[in-house]
Amino acid sequence: MPPHIPVQGKLLYAQSGGVTAVINATAAGVIETARAHGVQVYAARHGIVGALREELVDTSKESETAIAALRHTPGGAFGSCRYKLKSLQDDRSQYTRLIDVCQAHNIRWFLYNGGNDSADTALKLSQMGETLGYDLRCIGVPKTVDNDLVMTDCCPGFGSVAKYTALSTLEVGLDVASMAETSTRVFIMEVMGRNSGWIAAAAGLAGHGPDDAPHIILFPERTFNKDAFLAKVKATVERVGWCVVVSSEGIRNAAGQLLSDNGSRDAFGHAQLGGVAPMLAALIKKELGYKYHWALPDYLQRAARHTASRVDVEQAYAVGKAAVNYALDEMNAVMPVIVRDSDTPYRWKITPAPLKAIANHEKKVPEDFISADGFGITEAARRYLRPLIADEAPPPYSADGLPQYVQLRHVRVPAKLPAFTP
Amino acid sequence: MPPHIPVQGKLLYAQSGGVTAVINATAAGVIETARAHGVQVYAARHGIVGALREELVDTSKESETAIAALRHTPGGAFGSCRYKLKSLQDDRSQYTRLIDVCQAHNIRWFLYNGGNDSADTALKLSQMGETLGYDLRCIGVPKTVDNDLVMTDCCPGFGSVAKYTALSTLEVGLDVASMAETSTRVFIMEVMGRNSGWIAAAAGLAGHGPDDAPHIILFPERTFNKDAFLAKVKATVERVGWCVVVSSEGIRNAAGQLLSDNGSRDAFGHAQLGGVAPMLAALIKKELGYKYHWALPDYLQRAARHTASRVDVEQAYAVGKAAVNYALDEMNAVMPVIVRDSDTPYRWKITPAPLKAIANHEKKVPEDFISADGFGITEAARRYLRPLIADEAPPPYSADGLPQYVQLRHVRVPAKLPAFTP
Repeated sequence: MPPHIPVQGKLLYAQSGGVTAVINATAAGVIETARAHGVQVYAARHGIVGALREELVDTSKESETAIAALRHTPGGAFGSCRYKLKSLQDDRSQYTRLIDVCQAHNIRWFLYNGGNDSADTALKLSQMGETLGYDLRCIGVPKTVDNDLVMTDCCPGFGSVAKYTALSTLEVGLDVASMAETSTRVFIMEVMGRNSGWIAAAAGLAGHGPDDAPHIILFPERTFNKDAFLAKVKATVERVGWCVVVSSEGIRNAAGQLLSDNGSRDAFGHAQLGGVAPMLAALIKKELGYKYHWALPDYLQRAARHTASRVDVEQAYAVGKAAVNYALDEMNAVMPVIVRDSDTPYRWKITPAPLKAIANHEKKVPEDFISADGFGITEAARRYLRPLIADEAPPPYSADGLPQYVQLRHVRVPAKLPAFTP
Repeated sequence: MPPHIPVQGKLLYAQSGGVTAVINATAAGVIETARAHGVQVYAARHGIVGALREELVDTSKESETAIAALRHTPGGAFGSCRYKLKSLQDDRSQYTRLIDVCQAHNIRWFLYNGGNDSADTALKLSQMGETLGYDLRCIGVPKTVDNDLVMTDCCPGFGSVAKYTALSTLEVGLDVASMAETSTRVFIMEVMGRNSGWIAAAAGLAGHGPDDAPHIILFPERTFNKDAFLAKVKATVERVGWCVVVSSEGIRNAAGQLLSDNGSRDAFGHAQLGGVAPMLAALIKKELGYKYHWALPDYLQRAARHTASRVDVEQAYAVGKAAVNYALDEMNAVMPVIVRDSDTPYRWKITPAPLKAIANHEKKVPEDFISADGFGITEAARRYLRPLIADEAPPPYSADGLPQYVQLRHVRVPAKLPAFTP
C-alpha cells in the first residue's frame, strides 16, 4: 500500500524537450496557482536530468514580478533536456534515485512539461506508486511546437510558432513580389516538423487565394513528388511572376528518404547540413533556372515570443494552472488537454486526459486538411488553425527597444543526497 | 539651355534594389507630401525598368487610406529592380528613352529610392539636363538595410533589420541556454551584409556582458581567423555552457575568399548554397564536437515590418517628405540624409547632400566600433546603434491575427510611346 500523501508536500515542476515561446507561461501558471494554494514549488534544472541530479531550484525565492514576467519570456526558464528514461525493467536505479530525491525533499507531486517523450516519462513516474511503493502524483503538462500530441485539440507552443510562420510568409511574400521582375523568383522557407506538417500548414493562413503566398506547402504527410512540385513552381511563376514555397523539414521521397539527406558533402567531408530548403533551391535552379532565396529560421521560429499568439499564451498558462489543480485533487497519470467547443467564436476549455492514451502517440495533419493536389490547406484546416493565431500578446519593451525578458535567480535547494550521474 | 520647368509637371517615384520593412513608409512620405503641394505622383513599376518600359502607376488613383497604410507595409509596393544603367557614353539609348517617357508624361521631377547603385543611377539622370537638354530634377532617396551609404548617419531600413536581429539574438539566446545541458551547445545565425557588418553589429545590442548572447560576432571588416574563432567558441561553451555566434554573410579568410564559398557540392554538383552558417557549424562540429543549430533568416530579416523600429519608420517617412520638398525647391542631384545631433536624447534632422559624394561609396563599420579581439562591439558602437532600434511601431492587426498590409490598385497610366525593352 502506498503511504498516505501528507498535505504539506512540495510540488516539483520540470521542463522537457524543445522549448517554446510560451512554455514559461505554463511555468507561471503552475507557480502562481501553487502559491495561491500555499504549496511550495521546486523546479528541476534541465528537466528530469536535474531531478536525478538533485539540482532543484526553490521558486519561492523568486519575486511575484519575476514569476509574472515568465508569462512573456521565451525559452525554458529552468532549463530543459532531451533525455528519455529507460523502462523500470531496464534501469531500476533511475527510478529509485527519483524516489530518493522526492522523499528527501518531501515532493509529492510532479509536473512534467513537455511533448510525447515527456508524457511517456510522466507516465512511467506515475506508476512508481504501484511498483515501488512511493505514491507520487504525476501530471503531464502539454507543450510542443509540433502540435502532434493526441487527445488535445492543440498544443501550447504551436499557436505562437504558427503565428510567426504565417506572419513571416506574409511579409516575405511582399518582399519577393517586389524583387521578382529582375531578381528572385522563388523563395523557400523551411520550417520545423519532422513527422507532421502542422507548422507548414499554418503558413497557409498568410494567403487567401491561389496567387497569394504561400503558393506551395510541402507536408511530411505527403510523399515528395518532384515532377508535380516542379510543375507547380513553374506554373506559379508563369502566372504570378514569383512563387513562395514553405516546406516542412521532414519531407521524404518515394523511397522514404529525407530530402534533406541528399548525399552532398561539405568541405570537411560531412553530409550537407542545410536541410531541405537549399536542396529544393538547387533542384529549382537546375530544372527551371529561376533565381531563388531561401530561409531557415530554425530556433527563431519557436523562440519568437515577441509575436506570440494571445490564445497560445492563455492556453499555456491555463494548462499549468489546471495541472496544479489536478495534482492537488489527487489525480494521477493525467494531462490537462485543450478541448475546442466552437470555432467561431473560438471557445475552449481544459479537461484531464489519461497519459496512457497520449504517451508515444503522434497526431499528424489529417487528410481533409490538405488540398487535393497535396500542396495547400483546405477550408477545414483554416477553420482549425485560424483561432490559434488570433490576437497578439506583445511583451513589454524597455527604452532600449528590446523586450524585457526575465532572468530568474535560480536559488538552489541544498542537496541532501550523494551525487548521482544520470 | 534647358527649358523652363513648368509648375504643372508630374513627379516620378521609383523603388530600387533590395526592399526593406520601411521603404513603403518613404513612398508614403513622397506621395502624401506631393499631394499636399498639389503635385501628381506617378510611380514606376519595378524601378528604373518600369520607367524605361513606360510602365507607370498613377498614385492619385490610390485612396488616402491606402497611401497611409504604406507606412506600415513591408516590401516594395510598386516593385523594385536590380538594374544598373550603363553610362551615357556606353548606352545613350536608355537615356533618350527616359527623356522620351518624361516628356510624354510631363515628368519634371524624379525621385529614386535606393542604395549605392541607385544613387549612381539618380546621379546619371540628374546630369541629363546638361548633356541631353532635358531639365529633370533628380533626387536620390536613401534606403538600404546594409547601412552602407556615406554622408548619412544611418540608412532607412537599417534600424528595423537591426531591431529584428537584436531581438532574434536575444530570443534565441534564451532558447539555446535552455537546451545546452543535454543538446544544442552552439547556435549560429547568419545575417545580411556582404561587405559591411552593420547588421551583425546590431546583434550585439542583445547582450550586456561577456556571458550574454551574442558571444561572437563575425564582421566582413575582419579577416576570419579560424583558430581565434574556435578558441573563443570553446572558451565560451566551457564558461557559459553554450555559445551564440552571429555572422555576416560576407566574411572572408586570409586569402580573401568568402567562407561561404567553401568548395562543397550538393547532390546536383552545384556549389553549396548554404552560406557561412552551415560552414561554421561544420567547422565547430569537426574541431570541437559540439552539437549545433543554425539559422539563416534571409529575406525574413528585412521584411519584418511587424517588429520595425519606430525611429526607422519616422526617418523613412522623413526622407520621402524632404525629397519632395527638395525637388519642388528646384534642387538637383542631391539626397536627403540623416544628421545626428545627439545620442542621448537621440536627436536627428534631414539635410541635403550631393549625390556625387554618395554614389559608389561604401561605409564600413569603423575600427572603433569593433572590440579589440574582433568578435564584439564597443561602447561607441552601442551609443551609435541603440537609438536606431528604440521604440516600436507595430502595424495594425486584423481579427485573423495577421498584420493588415495594404495591396495597392496599381492603376496604370496609359502608355503613349512605342514599346521599349531595356
